[in-house]
Amino acid sequence: MSDVLELARELISRASVTPDDVGCQALIASRLQAADFACEHLRLGKVDNLWATHGGGDGPTLVLLGHTDVVPPGPREAWTSDPFEPTIRDGVLYGRGAADMKGSVAAFVVAAERFAALHPSHRGRLALLLTSDEEGDAIDGVRRVADLFRERGERIDWCITGEPSSKTKLGDLLRVGRRGSLSATLTVRGLQGHVAYPDKARNPIHLALKALDELASKRWDDGYESFPPTSLQISNIHAGTGANNVIPGELQVLFNLRYNPHWDAGRLIEACTAILDAHGLDHELRWHRSGEPFFTPEGELRASAREVLARFAGEPPEESTGGGTSDARFIAPLGAHCVEIGPVNASIHKVDEHVRVADLEALPELYLALIERLLA
Amino acid sequence: MSDVLELARELISRASVTPDDVGCQALIASRLQAADFACEHLRLGKVDNLWATHGGGDGPTLVLLGHTDVVPPGPREAWTSDPFEPTIRDGVLYGRGAADMKGSVAAFVVAAERFAALHPSHRGRLALLLTSDEEGDAIDGVRRVADLFRERGERIDWCITGEPSSKTKLGDLLRVGRRGSLSATLTVRGLQGHVAYPDKARNPIHLALKALDELASKRWDDGYESFPPTSLQISNIHAGTGANNVIPGELQVLFNLRYNPHWDAGRLIEACTAILDAHGLDHELRWHRSGEPFFTPEGELRASAREVLARFAGEPPEESTGGGTSDARFIAPLGAHCVEIGPVNASIHKVDEHVRVADLEALPELYLALIERLLA
Ligand SMILES: [Zn+2]
Ligand SMILES: [Zn+2]
Repeated sequence: MSDVLELARELISRASVTPDDVGCQALIASRLQAADFACEHLRLGKVDNLWATHGGGDGPTLVLLGHTDVVPPGPREAWTSDPFEPTIRDGVLYGRGAADMKGSVAAFVVAAERFAALHPSHRGRLALLLTSDEEGDAIDGVRRVADLFRERGERIDWCITGEPSSKTKLGDLLRVGRRGSLSATLTVRGLQGHVAYPDKARNPIHLALKALDELASKRWDDGYESFPPTSLQISNIHAGTGANNVIPGELQVLFNLRYNPHWDAGRLIEACTAILDAHGLDHELRWHRSGEPFFTPEGELRASAREVLARFAGEPPEESTGGGTSDARFIAPLGAHCVEIGPVNASIHKVDEHVRVADLEALPELYLALIERLLA
Repeated sequence: MSDVLELARELISRASVTPDDVGCQALIASRLQAADFACEHLRLGKVDNLWATHGGGDGPTLVLLGHTDVVPPGPREAWTSDPFEPTIRDGVLYGRGAADMKGSVAAFVVAAERFAALHPSHRGRLALLLTSDEEGDAIDGVRRVADLFRERGERIDWCITGEPSSKTKLGDLLRVGRRGSLSATLTVRGLQGHVAYPDKARNPIHLALKALDELASKRWDDGYESFPPTSLQISNIHAGTGANNVIPGELQVLFNLRYNPHWDAGRLIEACTAILDAHGLDHELRWHRSGEPFFTPEGELRASAREVLARFAGEPPEESTGGGTSDARFIAPLGAHCVEIGPVNASIHKVDEHVRVADLEALPELYLALIERLLA
């Protein structure tokens, strides 16, 4: 059995449901220490974070960014085999975290070990940053580590995240940015009453419909570089207690914005508030900023990643900024160029999560080729 | 203590929470039988109905329509005195049903007894129709009795309902109609998805907003005779499971129409469906017809009622078609002219429901005067 497959299986067999690490990072740290990495264990709240570096000479710092936590597997009986008993069937490795992202983390470790062995005095620094809080609140993970790095002046030039980016075959997509995410809880106040006496009530549903339609229909922009257009989605709407003869007093709405670098959270908040005010709504808005967008323009990292992926996949990758959020949103503001390269993502967060063994075994070489281009 | 006050107290002391009659009608029937009324007890499902008639010669039938059930009192401690222990404080009688409508029912009985004694061989028929299912489902009450009357060809010319119609003083309002009520449960179907991938989902909230706004904003008519304009109110709207990153697959909406005789339920259903179809919504509508409107035009009943009220109140009453629904909606389709005359309604369905003793004691004379005008 290959080194990377063995390590991936060992990581999957630890039920590290977010934010529990269950010893994954200790196992990795002991291997990296043996490969001459300096390891720093950052326990923040209930979250484990590992910062391991190799080399310290002049030159850039390249960080391999990953997480050891996984999303809950759901009911055992929905899975073909136990989510925490890694199982190979027909050349495919099954288990929670196989694709997101214990496979990538195992490949990082193997690639880092080989690089350190092959190039003991490379330029700059090669680092691994792992957290056990990417799938959960994502507060005591990379967010707080980035704050710490900012305080101590830690410089990061390049960051490769192992998030499963590929669509149908390994290396067919290079993620070069992510949209920002901004959530709002909106309360529209009316005046409760009886449906037979509409003049004595103010129906908050009726009052809000035009404003909500304006929010939902607005064309925020036409996209930005390879980003899709900014999008607002109303995810929840609730008013009324079930009775069909009562005009409710209040309407509750949750909505979320996924936005490209045309916007920042502050300007979006202003724009939404202006729409609600223009419709004269008596309203309250609470905002939750879950991450500004990031974007990696053309440069050494993006060019190198494109070339390495093209060699592995046989054709140049699609360069995309789609998808949800990742921890790269916390590293990019430190001034780092960030890309995301990982296995096929079709099964992530689902039952029977899996990765092809051939893809898993190609990953360390792929990462190693990229590390060598940047630091050797 | 006056006869009507004593009877009202006796009725209030029976906790006849809808649809339970708790012997109210048996008590009334025994009194009316003693006054030469023929009494028919119609037990339908769990509901008691009483049909009592006096006289049977040529001429019109006048029905006094009432209910012996009351709405639940809610927590005892919210009331100043026990809701089922009738209590007089400062010339006001307190208790559940005092105003809606055990006071009126007691006054009907006393007026009917006096009329039968004073005019043993009056023209036409004087009848009382009482139900214990007005405040509840209103299915096995006057609705089914009216079906029965239709089958056996029972003719009703005039109907006086004792619902509390007065605004601030007894007799200041004569109700000559009621709007119809029509309820709908609307389901709008979309396609569930992740907020990060709006192109792969169809947000049913977004899709529905313009159609709902059109339904809520539509001016259905400008009123009809003394009816207010037809009104549509959205009473409930629900979509989403709480998560702010999921586009829901379905939206649930409840709305209610209160409509005047410009419309009937069938045409309203067509109009609403046309609006939803015009917006291309994948939707399902379930309708609940809770009563067509009724309207009593100028004629002997309305003119007599106006004159009697003017004499009692000192000035002509406002003639109104406002308010919720009443059991008159079931009697009017039999071809009867219907009016509603009862005490001040400010406290109905609330804690500390009450009626002024002076108003209660004036009611039998008021009803008697009206009965005499129509049948003596
Ligand atoms: Zn992940
Ligand atoms: Zn009533």
